[in-house]
Amino acid sequence: MRSSFSGEFGLIKDIAAVIGKPSKNVIKGIGDDTAVIDTGGKKYLLATTDTLIESVHFDMSYFSFYDLGWKALAVNLSDIASMGGVSRYALVSLGLTKKVKTKDVRALYKGMEALAKKYRVDIIGGDTVFSPEKISITVSVIGEAEKKKVLYRKGARPGDLIMVTGDFGSAVPGKNKKHLCPEPRVLEGQIIAKNGRATAMMDCSDGLAFTIGEICRQSGTGADVREKLIPLSKGASLKQALYGGEDFELVFTCPPKFADIIADKVCSATGTAVSIIGNVVRKSEGVNIDTKGFEHFKW
Amino acid sequence: MRSSFSGEFGLIKDIAAVIGKPSKNVIKGIGDDTAVIDTGGKKYLLATTDTLIESVHFDMSYFSFYDLGWKALAVNLSDIASMGGVSRYALVSLGLTKKVKTKDVRALYKGMEALAKKYRVDIIGGDTVFSPEKISITVSVIGEAEKKKVLYRKGARPGDLIMVTGDFGSAVPGKNKKHLCPEPRVLEGQIIAKNGRATAMMDCSDGLAFTIGEICRQSGTGADVREKLIPLSKGASLKQALYGGEDFELVFTCPPKFADIIADKVCSATGTAVSIIGNVVRKSEGVNIDTKGFEHFKW
Repeated sequence: MRSSFSGEFGLIKDIAAVIGKPSKNVIKGIGDDTAVIDTGGKKYLLATTDTLIESVHFDMSYFSFYDLGWKALAVNLSDIASMGGVSRYALVSLGLTKKVKTKDVRALYKGMEALAKKYRVDIIGGDTVFSPEKISITVSVIGEAEKKKVLYRKGARPGDLIMVTGDFGSAVPGKNKKHLCPEPRVLEGQIIAKNGRATAMMDCSDGLAFTIGEICRQSGTGADVREKLIPLSKGASLKQALYGGEDFELVFTCPPKFADIIADKVCSATGTAVSIIGNVVRKSEGVNIDTKGFEHFKW
Repeated sequence: MRSSFSGEFGLIKDIAAVIGKPSKNVIKGIGDDTAVIDTGGKKYLLATTDTLIESVHFDMSYFSFYDLGWKALAVNLSDIASMGGVSRYALVSLGLTKKVKTKDVRALYKGMEALAKKYRVDIIGGDTVFSPEKISITVSVIGEAEKKKVLYRKGARPGDLIMVTGDFGSAVPGKNKKHLCPEPRVLEGQIIAKNGRATAMMDCSDGLAFTIGEICRQSGTGADVREKLIPLSKGASLKQALYGGEDFELVFTCPPKFADIIADKVCSATGTAVSIIGNVVRKSEGVNIDTKGFEHFKW
């Protein structure tokens, strides 16, 4: 779940105030990548939802309907992965304009099903309505996670390392695979969680700077990030990596002594590189990115 | 879940063909009011989603944001109720235009929370995005139901009676309470399911004619409905009751000998009237509404 509406923190705070305290089986409600529920079963239930709207999140001049179906599910699988969970079921709500043909809907579902099949997710239902102006697609995913292995945004501690999967900056809007058909870090997230030593995790859907800032905000910490250590995608600038968004890589924290073993496990099982990009520090030290050793950006 | 997009049966069939056979723990996937999942726990998990789009499903010239929040949740609670389930958790995706102010979002959540509180539903998360043209709201609800007590659209048998809660025809678009803030038949649905004798159930979100037709289609039966027995809302016409839509009453079937006891249980516990409006017949006899004893409408 993400909130790209302006003033989001204020808005989330407002919403949380209106809806009050959830019942005690809601382990985590509003404010993380997914909600976490104790249904009384062996595992926690995870639930998340994301909406994509035409001309805001995608443009049909370079998106195919196949891409759109893939991406709408991928962003949700990424959220479940960032909690260390396993995605199980998806609900799909489509708002379709007059222009959309039956074959387009089929293509959209083909893209979604290709990704669903890969990660054994069942598409279990949905709603299809007429939309007068823009195509919209909302996917909600239900997953599950080991009770003791769920990773939240809030667990980072001073002294932890900040680590990331993959590379950053290539997911800029346009005809590129990472923007059109992002590959959610599903197995990577599960391996990191299963190891049991990571302290916080979040997926990077709004730029690396935002993601690190949010982990720090929820953990009550600061961060020192070394620009030289940020793995940039081929041809990408630091600015794109920090603020470009939509990389759907995982950002996590863990004590230094477990960093190598986690990185090795992830890389050997999936081929995905894991990099250390900085340190969690005390809140009073702020969130800093040391770019070229001279400037400090604080936010 | 409903599908107000044109050609819906063809589209649902197409989608079902693309996504293939679900895994065996999916008891019911696409095609009923909710999906039904066997998670291995004592109860089944139910999941449903519905989207409302401005100028298609609501008009802000007579909807308040409070109404909109209420309604967006109500249509989902109605779906869970129609399976005989209990709604537990809701996810909310908002597409907000520039015109929408923070106080409007607060009012929307106040409306939703008023209904959520009434039926002990936790709002556990969501997504808030910018929408360039129209406000949209997608709510997904997760619920649960006793394994042996779930009611599907498909269980009606020739010889059963067709029964309904409440009355029909008043939920026409405009400034009326049933359109703005429908009261989902939550307890009624649970009582009907708990009794264990009803054979099929569906909520009436698209007119009584469509609902009866759909129960028959899925059950492989026909129906004889007596116009005189259809409980009309004050001032409503038969046409409004049959095709007006959005009454959110429950339509269910049961063997004649259990009709009175179910009706009594529902009415004594909730005050909601339950009426017999016709009979389930063999498929070969078609779906007929006997209006004024002369005409037969067949569809």
